Amino acid sequence: MTGERRSAALAALEAAAAAGVEICFANPGTTELPLVLALDRLAAIRPVPCLHENVATGAADGWGRLAGRPALALLHTGPGLTNGMANLHNARKGHSSLVALVGDHASWHRPADPPLAMALEAAARTTSDAVLTIRRPEDAPFWMAESIALARGGGGRVMTLVFPHDHQLATIAGTVTVRAPDPPAPVAEKVIREAAVALTQARRPCLLLDGPALFGEGLRLAGRVAAATGAVLAAPTGFARLETGRGLPPLVRIPYDPERAQAFFDGFDLVLLAGAREPVAFFGWPDQPSRFLQSHPGRRVLARPGEAVVAALAALAERLDAPQTPSFEVEKPPPAPTGALNPRTLAAACVGAIAPESVVVLTAVSSSWPFSELARTAAPHTQLALTGGAIGAGSALAIGAALARPGCRVLHLEADGSLAYLPAALWTQAREGLAITTVVCANRRYRILERELERSRRKPGPASRRLLALTEPAIDWVAVARGFGVPGERVATAEELGAALARAAACEGPYLVEAVLA
Amino acid sequence: MTGERRSAALAALEAAAAAGVEICFANPGTTELPLVLALDRLAAIRPVPCLHENVATGAADGWGRLAGRPALALLHTGPGLTNGMANLHNARKGHSSLVALVGDHASWHRPADPPLAMALEAAARTTSDAVLTIRRPEDAPFWMAESIALARGGGGRVMTLVFPHDHQLATIAGTVTVRAPDPPAPVAEKVIREAAVALTQARRPCLLLDGPALFGEGLRLAGRVAAATGAVLAAPTGFARLETGRGLPPLVRIPYDPERAQAFFDGFDLVLLAGAREPVAFFGWPDQPSRFLQSHPGRRVLARPGEAVVAALAALAERLDAPQTPSFEVEKPPPAPTGALNPRTLAAACVGAIAPESVVVLTAVSSSWPFSELARTAAPHTQLALTGGAIGAGSALAIGAALARPGCRVLHLEADGSLAYLPAALWTQAREGLAITTVVCANRRYRILERELERSRRKPGPASRRLLALTEPAIDWVAVARGFGVPGERVATAEELGAALARAAACEGPYLVEAVLA
Repeated sequence: MTGERRSAALAALEAAAAAGVEICFANPGTTELPLVLALDRLAAIRPVPCLHENVATGAADGWGRLAGRPALALLHTGPGLTNGMANLHNARKGHSSLVALVGDHASWHRPADPPLAMALEAAARTTSDAVLTIRRPEDAPFWMAESIALARGGGGRVMTLVFPHDHQLATIAGTVTVRAPDPPAPVAEKVIREAAVALTQARRPCLLLDGPALFGEGLRLAGRVAAATGAVLAAPTGFARLETGRGLPPLVRIPYDPERAQAFFDGFDLVLLAGAREPVAFFGWPDQPSRFLQSHPGRRVLARPGEAVVAALAALAERLDAPQTPSFEVEKPPPAPTGALNPRTLAAACVGAIAPESVVVLTAVSSSWPFSELARTAAPHTQLALTGGAIGAGSALAIGAALARPGCRVLHLEADGSLAYLPAALWTQAREGLAITTVVCANRRYRILERELERSRRKPGPASRRLLALTEPAIDWVAVARGFGVPGERVATAEELGAALARAAACEGPYLVEAVLA
Repeated sequence: MTGERRSAALAALEAAAAAGVEICFANPGTTELPLVLALDRLAAIRPVPCLHENVATGAADGWGRLAGRPALALLHTGPGLTNGMANLHNARKGHSSLVALVGDHASWHRPADPPLAMALEAAARTTSDAVLTIRRPEDAPFWMAESIALARGGGGRVMTLVFPHDHQLATIAGTVTVRAPDPPAPVAEKVIREAAVALTQARRPCLLLDGPALFGEGLRLAGRVAAATGAVLAAPTGFARLETGRGLPPLVRIPYDPERAQAFFDGFDLVLLAGAREPVAFFGWPDQPSRFLQSHPGRRVLARPGEAVVAALAALAERLDAPQTPSFEVEKPPPAPTGALNPRTLAAACVGAIAPESVVVLTAVSSSWPFSELARTAAPHTQLALTGGAIGAGSALAIGAALARPGCRVLHLEADGSLAYLPAALWTQAREGLAITTVVCANRRYRILERELERSRRKPGPASRRLLALTEPAIDWVAVARGFGVPGERVATAEELGAALARAAACEGPYLVEAVLA
């Protein structure tokens, strides 16, 4: 942080680097060129080119989940922002830490309403926790530092910072002092004391974990509480990050189907929310509840999202005199699967291929449940799932994950319907030489919608069939991947999938396996 | 339109069909399934599956530009809407007629803030002319009919209609009377009289046309006025639809570069806006103007966008006693080009391949200017360009164009940077068997940004070079297209391109030509 005169664009990026930003996923346009040129002069921030803004925002989400610090997603004014909004939505729902840096028209030009002009701040507010606009060049470093501090606080926030082109170009002096993010709000002693009593009295307690309670020290502490009380540990359907595998406290993922989710919660006399929000149904299905705990007599909150859940779990474990290093039953992994691929044999083959301390991006929906059940028998690993329900995030999340964990290979389990959203993410995987294995669960249909049709007991007619099938033509994912520079192969059996995953593991860069489901 | 009891979803779509809707570009999810099932029972509306919402909205834009009536773009709640917003922005800027039909969570479920919930109406307002929400099932047909009437009025509007899932499911009776759209506002006699005087007195007049003045009867009338007055006819840089070619009134496309645009307007002593808004610079470049006519003494308005410009031109031609069927100089087409491909030889090869009455989608930016200059020597054809500056629209616009003009082959001139945004549009082209020839102008860089760098006299450093080049790896567009079911080939010379275009013309369905620029 110097006081020399330089462009406000460079000064802002210097402030970003000082505040802990080290990567920028970018799809810039003309209104972001001064920022691009500033990156030329700032080795501390790595630029990663993305061919679509939703790649940039999704990759920043993946980075934020694992690094716990924000990446920048550099977007081209209003329409660039809108292209990246679906993954900003996912990031916001997952409490990721992220700063969308949006260039805008020169402040004197915007009143002319040029073609790319739109109400971009209004759009940004719908998928950001807050939107800041730089209105004077001298303030650019301050607002950048503030955006990053806010993004790092509150358990993770999605910030949008709008930076008009003329202000980027302006020359400024001055320095900025980077402030610490706001710490998570502490949990009152009384809340912890009452939670301990409730856990001790409950016959069948459940701890619903989210945020930092799902990995690392938080998960270790939750495991101690579980060992002391017999509580079942549960994770939301759409979690941002969790750790699972042999030796770790076992987690149950809340089912997607509302009947099964309701039955799951009804099986407990205490559901203690530890960093998790109250669980709600994914959709409003007729005759099904919105809130699974609405009339549950044992609903209790230890820590809300953004509150200091790890400290609360530590105090709870202390109060319960929980065992320091409990051991958890180690389930045997399934035998190596054989024969045709279905969600179960696919899951078994993938589970067998998970390397210790690796990352799995789990954005297939209908094909991913058997994997979730088997994954606890795998080597310990981190999983990232779909938080906000906006499909197409996975190939971008994998980019952020691979860059945040450079030593490990990322396994990305993706649905074909989802990958069709953002195939250009494969190009960034190739360009950056990222160790990502994409397994496309090619069921060649929007299976999740077929299940909804079955639920509604309606037979699909000609229009439904046309709209729900991903056939005529079936997508050749190996060709698409090769087109974007990623090698790959197609498999149809569990044995072939196992061999393909071994070949992928031997690659330095990305690899795609199209797993055709029977 | 019957009074029988049926789902509100079906009743709304019946109203849509009665109001002139015949096609629905769809990327539905669970919250749109009642609408999908209603399409099963309604042969009058053709469902076209799209693998990304921006394909659906862009295709609806292409349809609306040529049909002059709206298509439906069926989108999946908030995040689905955001994915389609860039092309809604383009449609709005181009005064296209379009209805985005967005399913939403059941009204009783949305307060639970499920994963996909967001402030979708607020987002929709930023890229729509108006947003309507169905709050009672009985009102669904009325609001659908109203959306379509509004979309057809005012010279073309982009409407968003939000339809909660529970209201779609509800059973209703009742009918709706479809109303006529609001006609364009008439131009006062005095305005026409004064315009005629100004044209007669001007030494070097220009008519800047837009909207319906750029094609059909409007263009014919503009040609009569030009013949009577010597006025130069100009089209905006980013026009929605124009007709050009041998025998048609010649149009000059306003240059993209602000210096050239300003010089163009400075060459006239009268600039009469006929359906066009006041021309502004695409970006706010330092030392360049925002509004090219700001201090122009000869700026005058005949008809604003949405006003009755065709009737105004007819009255003007009458008052000027303009020749009924003027003939325009027929420029000779360029000789068949040879050798390496550059924007000029590429344009010449494409111009030679244009069939009479066909459609050209012109969304390449830096490679398309020579084509714009040569196109007046081609057979008469219709062009669609990028209206709102949000790149990635072309492959979707081509879908709507091919469906609106089933007899003709669509030529789509696209930049590689743009096609990377929405390659999944190729799948819909294959699924529907659409006669679209895509020519990818593969310069393998964001050339438009390089030009901006040259303008700023800054040398690209390592970060800029990484962010502006589409190499390492170069995208293999032939492989990507094949993956999505579209055959194609790669060419590097003008002769090869000519032969490839001939092969494409012999296809029934889509074909992609990767034209590698030297």
